[in-house]
Amino acid sequence: MPRRPDDTLLLTPGPVSVSYATKAVMLVDRPSGDAAFQAELAYAREYLVRIANGGDDYTAIPLPGSATYANEAAMALLVPPEGKLLVHSNGVYGDRLIEICEALGIAVAALRTEPFTPPTGDLFAAALQADPVITHVMLVHCETSTGVLNPLDEVAALCRAQGKGLLVDAVASFGAIAIDLAALGADAVTLSSNKCMQGVPGVGWAVLRRAALEAAPPGRRSLCLDLREQGSHMEATGAFRFTPPTQVAAAFAQACREHEAEGGSAARLARYARNWRRLVDGMRQMGFRTVVPDAAASPIVATFHNPGHPAFSFDALYEGMKRRGFVIFPGRLALADTFRIGCMGDVDEQDIAEAMVAVAETMREMGVASIGREAVSTIGREAATAA
Amino acid sequence: MPRRPDDTLLLTPGPVSVSYATKAVMLVDRPSGDAAFQAELAYAREYLVRIANGGDDYTAIPLPGSATYANEAAMALLVPPEGKLLVHSNGVYGDRLIEICEALGIAVAALRTEPFTPPTGDLFAAALQADPVITHVMLVHCETSTGVLNPLDEVAALCRAQGKGLLVDAVASFGAIAIDLAALGADAVTLSSNKCMQGVPGVGWAVLRRAALEAAPPGRRSLCLDLREQGSHMEATGAFRFTPPTQVAAAFAQACREHEAEGGSAARLARYARNWRRLVDGMRQMGFRTVVPDAAASPIVATFHNPGHPAFSFDALYEGMKRRGFVIFPGRLALADTFRIGCMGDVDEQDIAEAMVAVAETMREMGVASIGREAVSTIGREAATAA
Repeated sequence: MPRRPDDTLLLTPGPVSVSYATKAVMLVDRPSGDAAFQAELAYAREYLVRIANGGDDYTAIPLPGSATYANEAAMALLVPPEGKLLVHSNGVYGDRLIEICEALGIAVAALRTEPFTPPTGDLFAAALQADPVITHVMLVHCETSTGVLNPLDEVAALCRAQGKGLLVDAVASFGAIAIDLAALGADAVTLSSNKCMQGVPGVGWAVLRRAALEAAPPGRRSLCLDLREQGSHMEATGAFRFTPPTQVAAAFAQACREHEAEGGSAARLARYARNWRRLVDGMRQMGFRTVVPDAAASPIVATFHNPGHPAFSFDALYEGMKRRGFVIFPGRLALADTFRIGCMGDVDEQDIAEAMVAVAETMREMGVASIGREAVSTIGREAATAA
Repeated sequence: MPRRPDDTLLLTPGPVSVSYATKAVMLVDRPSGDAAFQAELAYAREYLVRIANGGDDYTAIPLPGSATYANEAAMALLVPPEGKLLVHSNGVYGDRLIEICEALGIAVAALRTEPFTPPTGDLFAAALQADPVITHVMLVHCETSTGVLNPLDEVAALCRAQGKGLLVDAVASFGAIAIDLAALGADAVTLSSNKCMQGVPGVGWAVLRRAALEAAPPGRRSLCLDLREQGSHMEATGAFRFTPPTQVAAAFAQACREHEAEGGSAARLARYARNWRRLVDGMRQMGFRTVVPDAAASPIVATFHNPGHPAFSFDALYEGMKRRGFVIFPGRLALADTFRIGCMGDVDEQDIAEAMVAVAETMREMGVASIGREAVSTIGREAATAA
């Protein structure tokens, strides 16, 4: 079975490359009402709760679309009309949560902090103290636009102490970075079928605390994004309310099985950490500088400064990498001339070693000689040894 | 290339079976920001407008999720806060549109008619006359829960004459039953990536009249389901706003190519009509009765009465068919003991002939001898001749 039949590996913050076995599940047409399909769905639901240590107190509800849909749906469900949501943002995905509040008419207090460092818990405490009307807090666990890991445990402790509901956008962390729902006590955690879970994109998920779901105010702002009805319909019938993306959903169950076989989130994190280490070491060897301090970085994606060399252009780097079978990503934050290389997905150290060779070759091609020439030989040897 | 590697053919109202080539597109990981992916998307958008004769006046906007998402998004966009929507319903999907109005707080006048016959245009005229506040009309072109084809042309003429906006749920018809937007003048037509277009499910589409889109009131009720921003972002960048279901979207472009190669909607309708003829003739030969009169039926799906025989059970028929490689569907309307067999998807006459053999065999197995015994030999011969 070819690992990469297309010969292109996505080293991006998403969509990420997934295994051939996961994609091959999509070669079959499945009826959405069938017991076999519903068993796959039930397994995936149970598995997500299990790896997040949710026990009987949590339930996982899928929502076709993307993880952003799951965020919007969880916010619409859990923040009552008279409630107010403190949203932290230090990047594109935090900003998107604020946009959702504005679209839904949810009262929001925005806590914006520096993009390349995580905020301190004190900042959250101060924001809560400044605005006692706040009923809920939401933060992005790992901000994909930079790779910064935000202080979830600290914020959760604060929410528990002050009786605030907590919503966590764990889209870029769930499945790799540990999330202990029993300890956190969060009302909702959202994730993508892709990213660290390594299914194909197309379904967002919300893992909800049953008590919070039951206590949620009545009414709904949308039929499609109604998580309560999606959940209760699924409990009653085992099925989605509307025709689901059957291929994507079935592939997700396979992705869960592979996650389990790999050794769960800890093993996956260890693999991503090896990828990240190899990537950052290799890039530094070629003279690149990371944007996020190592202490604040997550092994999900790394952001690099464009080198100052006049012959460098990101487009040329992108094209050179693409020709060699690797896709990388531009930076997302306007304030910095940066680009990103991801470590998530069906990617291992050897893949990263080969990608480093591709970077070095492309840099030399570009005429960024001071970086490229020496690196090619060094990195080339490394990759050869690893192979 | 195996046509049915899983050896199961979906004869359901959706999800429907799609070609192996369309599914094989999903074996590749694609970056969502890549020019090649965006070219596929641009082709699909252009193709949908083209086959609906939308010319320069219409634009096609994809919305990850399902066709119901596209319905909700189009309704939210086009019906202004002071507007009122006349929604026709003669089945499950019409009822769902009414539910969407209720969830969104859109003022709605429900025009409910008999499930197994199409309404007359006069009923719509009377409803509009009775409630002059109505600004928009919405109907389900083909009601999947029964297969009834509703009188789109008549309703569109009425809307044009009276200056009402028209929204069409063409989820079960688009790609097979002709839709001429230039003639209809509809503001919105929605469709699924699956059904008659024969892509895999996971993306809803709205084909919008540009003038209606531009005249739509400002504001939005949802970030995810904001068709205006989805459209303008796509025009500006060529890309989705959020990580799309790349596999599903890429497969859809392949499905469009196959639709074009088959000869467009007319050729597809002709194939479905042959399937439907074969199905209805075969079933009648075995003593089954259709629920919808032939004149009102569409060649998308056929609904059959459960036979009165005491040994008959739908579950046994379902299981017997499944064992033989065919999936059929129960009826959706509580008022009738019925089941459905679909004619859509990557299905041809020979498939239907084989399915008829499977029905006959299963009926005999069940002990519904008066129907089954004679039919097996007759239908069996027919299938053998066709093969």
